[in-house]
Amino acid sequence: MSAHINKTHDPTLRSWLASANEPGGDFPIQNLPFGLFRTSAKEPGRIGVALGRSVVDIAASHKHGAFAGCSPEAEEALSTCQGSTLNALMALGSNRWAAVRRALQAALVEGSATRESVVLVEQADAEMLLPVEIGDYTDFYCSIHHATNVGSMFRPDNPLMPNYKHLPVGYHGRASSVVISETPVRRPSGQKRPAEGEAPPFGPSALLDYELEVGFFIGAGNALGEARDLDTVADDLFGFCLVNDWSARDVQAWEYQPLGPFLAKSFMTSISPWIVTTEALAPFRVAAFERPDGDPTPLPHLDSEGNRSRGGLDLRLEVHVTSEKMRAESQKPHRLSTGNFNTMYWTAAQMATHHGSNGCNMRPGDLLASGTVSGPGKDSRGCLLEITWRGAEPVSLPSGEERKFLADGDELTLSGWCEAEGAVRIGFGECRGLVLPAT
Amino acid sequence: MSAHINKTHDPTLRSWLASANEPGGDFPIQNLPFGLFRTSAKEPGRIGVALGRSVVDIAASHKHGAFAGCSPEAEEALSTCQGSTLNALMALGSNRWAAVRRALQAALVEGSATRESVVLVEQADAEMLLPVEIGDYTDFYCSIHHATNVGSMFRPDNPLMPNYKHLPVGYHGRASSVVISETPVRRPSGQKRPAEGEAPPFGPSALLDYELEVGFFIGAGNALGEARDLDTVADDLFGFCLVNDWSARDVQAWEYQPLGPFLAKSFMTSISPWIVTTEALAPFRVAAFERPDGDPTPLPHLDSEGNRSRGGLDLRLEVHVTSEKMRAESQKPHRLSTGNFNTMYWTAAQMATHHGSNGCNMRPGDLLASGTVSGPGKDSRGCLLEITWRGAEPVSLPSGEERKFLADGDELTLSGWCEAEGAVRIGFGECRGLVLPAT
Repeated sequence: MSAHINKTHDPTLRSWLASANEPGGDFPIQNLPFGLFRTSAKEPGRIGVALGRSVVDIAASHKHGAFAGCSPEAEEALSTCQGSTLNALMALGSNRWAAVRRALQAALVEGSATRESVVLVEQADAEMLLPVEIGDYTDFYCSIHHATNVGSMFRPDNPLMPNYKHLPVGYHGRASSVVISETPVRRPSGQKRPAEGEAPPFGPSALLDYELEVGFFIGAGNALGEARDLDTVADDLFGFCLVNDWSARDVQAWEYQPLGPFLAKSFMTSISPWIVTTEALAPFRVAAFERPDGDPTPLPHLDSEGNRSRGGLDLRLEVHVTSEKMRAESQKPHRLSTGNFNTMYWTAAQMATHHGSNGCNMRPGDLLASGTVSGPGKDSRGCLLEITWRGAEPVSLPSGEERKFLADGDELTLSGWCEAEGAVRIGFGECRGLVLPAT
Repeated sequence: MSAHINKTHDPTLRSWLASANEPGGDFPIQNLPFGLFRTSAKEPGRIGVALGRSVVDIAASHKHGAFAGCSPEAEEALSTCQGSTLNALMALGSNRWAAVRRALQAALVEGSATRESVVLVEQADAEMLLPVEIGDYTDFYCSIHHATNVGSMFRPDNPLMPNYKHLPVGYHGRASSVVISETPVRRPSGQKRPAEGEAPPFGPSALLDYELEVGFFIGAGNALGEARDLDTVADDLFGFCLVNDWSARDVQAWEYQPLGPFLAKSFMTSISPWIVTTEALAPFRVAAFERPDGDPTPLPHLDSEGNRSRGGLDLRLEVHVTSEKMRAESQKPHRLSTGNFNTMYWTAAQMATHHGSNGCNMRPGDLLASGTVSGPGKDSRGCLLEITWRGAEPVSLPSGEERKFLADGDELTLSGWCEAEGAVRIGFGECRGLVLPAT
């Protein structure tokens, strides 16, 4: 993996925009995540990067000369930011992404000569939109803690399948229903397991759940029939976001055999609005999950020195909920769990490499998600199915309410950020969704 | 379902193009399936309909006045045929599809006043391209004969899951690797089940198979959160094609639990080049599969009088294979099986309705496939896994060779056609693919 720490990660870098320099903020000048925004429902989305509490309008800033004197590689990358999706930028590959990051920083850093040409919009005035045309969406199952917890509920004598430690288990998800944070989720209806001798009931899911996941986007991709090696794939991940894989557990339990999850998931998947680039995350790369003694070594195409030493990502994660009653009583969001992406059994690059190992073509903008991020502890379980152990141990909310699964009016918020010694903290922002009643 | 027989199905209609009137041909004037073609690798694809041994270039014919005097609805539909995908036409819905069919027939029928303005290309000179941008591809499992056969190999005491007769089981497939007929299939590599105590081997699949399926395309679709009723959905299927769901059985057996097929399928899926419209198929609609006594009645949202009486499709199917040796010896293709789409336990409209029943949004051009079409008889098994019963009963080829699964150099050809009393036979053409050795 060539991703490494360079001048763009220098913790002494400061922006001329004061809100970017506030300690603990998500979007300092070392971050610069990409998104799509608009300030009026009548206009198409515009590509921007988050900076402090603002958004940099890339195309408008470019037009005004904010990136004057940048490299030809940066010019090429900037020219793809006129449209309303990031796919063309993603297709250019990591050299161009690095060039545009340098050009953005040069314009945004304290003392920039082109400061007056940068066009900013307040995040508070911007509506965020889905920034990528997602050709295919794939969901993995790469937390061994999650797989063991869930497996032991449904197959107590056989929680982990024999393949689990040999390949990153995944399945194709539904791309059409991937939506941006703040899109409300409508409680889905579906068919559920019948009582003995009766017809299966069809109606609103009674066991609506969320899943805390991390997503990442393919860059240039690969042609059909051409597998790539692990380190090449790692360099071709454009960036990361938070994913909420909403799940209807009662629908899932009835439908999933033998071909896997389908309608229990396809009603909606939410992603956070800012794609944090792989390069911005370089200071937070850590060793891949250390496999316990006795666990198999990954096969050669899923193993490399770079992946072992730097394939992991120290990304801290939290989930909060508020109920309608809590909001009416102005109570603070209740934290459901805290976790870390570095507890995953497989790295993002291993997931993507496995995915392409049969020659499956990956296209710019394809979204891969990790599966529920659950850690080893009870406080780091990434969904209510695990937290309440199928409803046996309900969660108590500060309003006095209890939750086994999500109720109408509940709002879920996923958040994530990276911290490391000698680096400036960077954040992912939030992935939010309010549960609406079934129609 | 409003699809019904009208003047465009009149068996006495003849075209001024002689090859369209030859008995037994696939593409008479009553068919007019849509596809995308080009005559030089340098040009973008052009939308056309097949007629006899020719293709009607729709945009060029339109420009030359071939559809002069057509209805405003037909004009609107024709205006979407300037580009290189059918998605915009699909989005217009069944009234516009009917209008463009009438306009095409008026120009192509014997005695047409605009005959001289129709631009034709010989099919022999045309390369066919993928005619649709497929947002999502979903694969079902709707032959009860196939599900019972396969289930009994792997779970002899429990071949059919309890959900099978209550909902059309399906899973999300990979859209990026859906290719047009004649694209060669590269034998994929993958991880396979290890011998006891050993690491799983990774290498070329030794059990490469095909699956004979029928596909269909969504028209206008539905918004996220909005389910539709069965009859509305049936009217919103644009058309049908043949699908070969190439499958690596050894990869599948190791990877598929608990989340379903993934890399065993995603290396390639082939579709036939001509999309036969739902309207052209009206004379061949038949009663849905008659469920044996004791089988459950479908739930209300998966049941309607229209679906019961006309939800099935009498579509005859065949699969042929040639080996390299057979071609060298100029032997005729060997027929592996023959079947009929009307043996499926669930209808196309039931599959699509179930898919959207949780509010999952379907977009114009989404592809749904039926799953392997296997009938009740041994001669109607739709894949080698069933035909050779996992290799236990190899197929003998006329060259003296045997097949348990596909060998490099084998070429598979799926074909399909409809016949009914009082109607002109219409065909689907072929879905072909040659197996290339692993890289």
